[in-house]
Amino acid sequence: MVFVLAAAAASAADQPRARTLGVPFDGTPGLLDAITDVKGVTVGHSTIVRGEGALKVGEGPVRTGVTAILPRGRETMNDPVFAGWFALNGAGEMTGTTWIEEGGFLEGPVMITNTHSVGAVHEATIAWRVKEGAADATGYWWSNPVVAETWDGELNDINGFHVKQANVFEALSGAKGGPVAEGNVGGGTGMICNGFKGGIGTASRKLSDAAGGYTVGALVQCNYGRKADLTIAGVPVGREIIGEGARDDDEGSIIIVVATDAPLLPTQLKRLARRAALGLARVGSIAGNGSGDIFIAFSTANPGAARPTGLVALSDLPNDRMNPLFAATVQSVEEAIVNAMIAAETMKGANNFVVRALPHDDLRRILKKYGRVVEPTP
Amino acid sequence: MVFVLAAAAASAADQPRARTLGVPFDGTPGLLDAITDVKGVTVGHSTIVRGEGALKVGEGPVRTGVTAILPRGRETMNDPVFAGWFALNGAGEMTGTTWIEEGGFLEGPVMITNTHSVGAVHEATIAWRVKEGAADATGYWWSNPVVAETWDGELNDINGFHVKQANVFEALSGAKGGPVAEGNVGGGTGMICNGFKGGIGTASRKLSDAAGGYTVGALVQCNYGRKADLTIAGVPVGREIIGEGARDDDEGSIIIVVATDAPLLPTQLKRLARRAALGLARVGSIAGNGSGDIFIAFSTANPGAARPTGLVALSDLPNDRMNPLFAATVQSVEEAIVNAMIAAETMKGANNFVVRALPHDDLRRILKKYGRVVEPTP
Amino acid sequence: MVFVLAAAAASAADQPRARTLGVPFDGTPGLLDAITDVKGVTVGHSTIVRGEGALKVGEGPVRTGVTAILPRGRETMNDPVFAGWFALNGAGEMTGTTWIEEGGFLEGPVMITNTHSVGAVHEATIAWRVKEGAADATGYWWSNPVVAETWDGELNDINGFHVKQANVFEALSGAKGGPVAEGNVGGGTGMICNGFKGGIGTASRKLSDAAGGYTVGALVQCNYGRKADLTIAGVPVGREIIGEGARDDDEGSIIIVVATDAPLLPTQLKRLARRAALGLARVGSIAGNGSGDIFIAFSTANPGAARPTGLVALSDLPNDRMNPLFAATVQSVEEAIVNAMIAAETMKGANNFVVRALPHDDLRRILKKYGRVVEPTP
Amino acid sequence: MVFVLAAAAASAADQPRARTLGVPFDGTPGLLDAITDVKGVTVGHSTIVRGEGALKVGEGPVRTGVTAILPRGRETMNDPVFAGWFALNGAGEMTGTTWIEEGGFLEGPVMITNTHSVGAVHEATIAWRVKEGAADATGYWWSNPVVAETWDGELNDINGFHVKQANVFEALSGAKGGPVAEGNVGGGTGMICNGFKGGIGTASRKLSDAAGGYTVGALVQCNYGRKADLTIAGVPVGREIIGEGARDDDEGSIIIVVATDAPLLPTQLKRLARRAALGLARVGSIAGNGSGDIFIAFSTANPGAARPTGLVALSDLPNDRMNPLFAATVQSVEEAIVNAMIAAETMKGANNFVVRALPHDDLRRILKKYGRVVEPTP
Repeated sequence: MVFVLAAAAASAADQPRARTLGVPFDGTPGLLDAITDVKGVTVGHSTIVRGEGALKVGEGPVRTGVTAILPRGRETMNDPVFAGWFALNGAGEMTGTTWIEEGGFLEGPVMITNTHSVGAVHEATIAWRVKEGAADATGYWWSNPVVAETWDGELNDINGFHVKQANVFEALSGAKGGPVAEGNVGGGTGMICNGFKGGIGTASRKLSDAAGGYTVGALVQCNYGRKADLTIAGVPVGREIIGEGARDDDEGSIIIVVATDAPLLPTQLKRLARRAALGLARVGSIAGNGSGDIFIAFSTANPGAARPTGLVALSDLPNDRMNPLFAATVQSVEEAIVNAMIAAETMKGANNFVVRALPHDDLRRILKKYGRVVEPTP
Repeated sequence: MVFVLAAAAASAADQPRARTLGVPFDGTPGLLDAITDVKGVTVGHSTIVRGEGALKVGEGPVRTGVTAILPRGRETMNDPVFAGWFALNGAGEMTGTTWIEEGGFLEGPVMITNTHSVGAVHEATIAWRVKEGAADATGYWWSNPVVAETWDGELNDINGFHVKQANVFEALSGAKGGPVAEGNVGGGTGMICNGFKGGIGTASRKLSDAAGGYTVGALVQCNYGRKADLTIAGVPVGREIIGEGARDDDEGSIIIVVATDAPLLPTQLKRLARRAALGLARVGSIAGNGSGDIFIAFSTANPGAARPTGLVALSDLPNDRMNPLFAATVQSVEEAIVNAMIAAETMKGANNFVVRALPHDDLRRILKKYGRVVEPTP
Repeated sequence: MVFVLAAAAASAADQPRARTLGVPFDGTPGLLDAITDVKGVTVGHSTIVRGEGALKVGEGPVRTGVTAILPRGRETMNDPVFAGWFALNGAGEMTGTTWIEEGGFLEGPVMITNTHSVGAVHEATIAWRVKEGAADATGYWWSNPVVAETWDGELNDINGFHVKQANVFEALSGAKGGPVAEGNVGGGTGMICNGFKGGIGTASRKLSDAAGGYTVGALVQCNYGRKADLTIAGVPVGREIIGEGARDDDEGSIIIVVATDAPLLPTQLKRLARRAALGLARVGSIAGNGSGDIFIAFSTANPGAARPTGLVALSDLPNDRMNPLFAATVQSVEEAIVNAMIAAETMKGANNFVVRALPHDDLRRILKKYGRVVEPTP
Repeated sequence: MVFVLAAAAASAADQPRARTLGVPFDGTPGLLDAITDVKGVTVGHSTIVRGEGALKVGEGPVRTGVTAILPRGRETMNDPVFAGWFALNGAGEMTGTTWIEEGGFLEGPVMITNTHSVGAVHEATIAWRVKEGAADATGYWWSNPVVAETWDGELNDINGFHVKQANVFEALSGAKGGPVAEGNVGGGTGMICNGFKGGIGTASRKLSDAAGGYTVGALVQCNYGRKADLTIAGVPVGREIIGEGARDDDEGSIIIVVATDAPLLPTQLKRLARRAALGLARVGSIAGNGSGDIFIAFSTANPGAARPTGLVALSDLPNDRMNPLFAATVQSVEEAIVNAMIAAETMKGANNFVVRALPHDDLRRILKKYGRVVEPTP
């Protein structure tokens, strides 16, 4: 097997981001402005870029990958987190949600890949646990992993099933804290967003001490939308940039993962997941018919909440204190999407189809025209 | 206003019950075999029986009422309980569920009445709080009461809107612990169940110490089903009793309230609410198209969980320990339905329509025929 | 009983609207830019403005009302419409949704009022049917009306229960097509939105012939949000207007009604209802904890779909053709909210609390500053 | 690859069934008393039985398989069916449900396998379409297959991932109408139910002409429950049979597939799916915490409903006519479960663990004791 790490992945810290271009956002980001600002969360990518030219099913070209988000790093296998999920438009897949809805726990990583590799990633995620982990506290190996997807079939030989067990293991075993590679990496490698090149993006918000000092982080695999609808900082950027978008209609999908260290119950995390829709709307989405807009939120608080015996002591943030978390979620999601588009680079894929990157200069020029550019943040 | 307390209500302790007839059930009941075995829960009825003969809209005859279940008695107004709900078949109304689903709290009593008195009970429940209670901890009077209903339009002048504020106040202010009047009382006054007279019924289960010693109680307002489907202790009782049922089809509805003192989160209480369907199925229900089969479950544990500031410390029973609660719910609901039918007495209502009570002798004879009668429990 | 029709209601055609101020919107509005552009839909208001000065519960001041939306005008009573609903944040009430979810039909009008008048409106809506209508096709009077609410307790004596049967009858019997009064009318009379005076607003979109030529209309009762979050045409208007908002936090609520003549099934109408969230997001909402953001969508197509016998022949627009409807919903909702704020006038209510109208001049000035004002449309 | 077709599969017509033992059921079965009585539905199994003795992960012993249900046989790939789903207890997986909920269509087969082979079956189901089928009507290969599971880890080397693409192709390509093999076949090979050997079971009901003459069929992969709860024909059979059950607690799961030719909309099919819970309850289930009780219902009526252009003409059975379908669903599910247990044979699996079949003689003896045995039906 041959797979190539995108260059970007090696230099997550240097990639261009929305703030470095002067796009204005509300709220205060965490240190890295990334989902990994939520302590314990690790992210790993396996990026597969191979071949050029005409599509031959099973041979390529390959422009795909897989991304792993581990709520508690390696401890994820032993200590489930409270979680909730929401489908704004369910034209897609996120496996494992039936148990999240029922039991309130996310019992492993969140994996994101292309539509037709859900199966391979599902099996390999269990295999990784069998290899690296242990049975659960009741002596049981039951595994019901969360695997989500978006469609990269324009750039990638999606019917060739190129994501293999080794890729999944690479993403899972390589997951780490710190800066997160964005753009054409991991599951986001071959994605298209709002008519331009899409992919992985992330952002975070840090609440004030008065609001509890909690952190909210979002990571998106963004592959949705039409150029005509693209809105950044309230400005109709998509229409002002000359040329056609890479897709005619609002197809594609977006997977959004929201993490927080605020102590929330499953019902409250579902509320957070639902707010992801509002962040997405700010970038212009109408949640098109074919768009799998599926969101999951989890909390790293309350370790040990899933132990099977005795009574569990939990800490809970009251509903009445959730508004700052709602705002942070909306803002993180909005910025993560823009970050994905700004980090993604122009890509040539199957059948020499080219998807161009969002032109940074045009973006700045248009924001400026509407009085919506700010001093870049390093 | 004139309203009459049914005689039965005065003597809840003496009413006939399934166990006194030797119907076998699984599990161990609480002391009273009633929802009030869950400490703190109080129940009040207002029963309105007035007039005879031909129906004249607005004048009667009246065979209706309202029942109030207060999770923490009078403290209910100040200290919401965690709750969850489920509609097996949503051809009915239970107001207030949208907030239960969102916030996880039941913030007042559960009220049950006839279909067309939902409005009167809704307003009067708020009026009672305004009169007897206080604004919430944030200084806010916002009230979104839970009012559920079933249809008594065969026996009762339902378009006459005979449930008034005084009835609602009577049910709320008169709510108490101890034995619960069953049958033709409160909201159950004019109800029909499985072809015979229905109404209010209750039952409970006490878990073993090994299972935590928790109590589960159910209260039903039962008004659903066909005679042909009536099954008691697994025996097709309905078919073996001679004569026609009071309704041709599976119309009507059933409201089920499940209470427990086990420390459960909202997601877990939704699971309990869903189990009510399994108890209902044991009595033969197919959840007919017109049947509003709507269930709510709440926990009296975790007092203070709804306070709006700081962090809240909660106790939670793990999912892995819920099976005994599931069994207790199924069993309590099954028995509560049978209790409702056994306590209910033959009633003549509007237009001299008569709904006969389930004949106790026939029931015993048929259970005996199938080897399913046991020594009566006093 | 004394109640006063707001002057505005008499002159719906002359009220100021977003387009007359030059606010830019996407899409093509219908003739009236109102929910009544969907043929057959009628709207009626009863507005109650009475008293001044200190609040005395039960006496006033009164600043409230009720709004009725009838999908098929008077035929609504006899011919239910397909419908779907969605709660973005369920801190509020919309009765009747359990049956909409189960059966797929809205079997009467949608009523909107204040939080504590849900009961009065519920009962009176049934009473109106009893008075003006007939039993259903199966001979049954079962009524389960849809009544939604938002909180006007700052300006209105909400604990005084001032909405009476006569008001409900006025709204229902007075409902008509044509221009719809906006702002301080009907259920919207005492509402507050994004820190300024809120109320009723409406807008519509007409699809191209290629997209089927369908109409989508929205009507909102808007009472949500913080001044700081108010965004119009992508511009952070709320922050740029000097002064404090009428509420500190994102409290209040918004009820959104979406109507269309496109032939959609209940599952598809739920999809439309969900898109209302995206329109709301464009105006800056984070769906605050206490905000009851509850949406309903119905289709006037397929008359006779609810008849109880035989087989029903239906027409259905494929999912693959829904994107223009999604866009139209998002756009109509966004504009309806802005219209509500622009039509609403400064109001003084209970305890002389004053809520100022959104200042039109400031709005135009700020939009202009950001290059987002267009030539006004008459 | 070596895999062995269970002998039972070759002789579906001769297998013992509940009716041949005299178990009484309500309603009138279809010709085969199987899901294939619904015209067009085909079923295929791949059964893998290999090795004996001590478990060695990756080597065996293997007692597993996969079952495919194709709503329209081979046409399934080209013509989606309306569908709905319901999780009574979501401790399991059924992929593809998010799109069913959103779009209302099941766009391929329903596959059932063991918990850890969901991934392999998911990918292979797409691969089969790529090999045997075509892009959809919009030229798109997007595939989001429905794959459900239950746990066979006691008898089977579940961490060895023994279900391979060839098995999936065998089940899909071998699917046919006519009698359906039950018991230890396909996905049901290694399953345990109510303490005895479980597996695949099926049954059907044919409605009267007055009710429309429609057929309802159910197929279950049954792996849930405790011996102590097993109830057949209302009789507590499990307690009366001497000896221990194969599991201590209500673990395992049950997947239920309901098919009908009645013209129902997605919302109505969800109603059917929910009734599967009532059939399951009749056999004694409490829907234990670890039990993935997940149900799907589809209708073969309205071919062409999913075409992407123009308007689609649909036929719909009114809600008011659904009661006979509800009864048929409850009855078919109840009987399918009992059929699964009666067809399943004693199996020795990994580590020589033996799960005994439900003893037919004991069953007949106990039913007789309670007056609940009838003349066997051939």
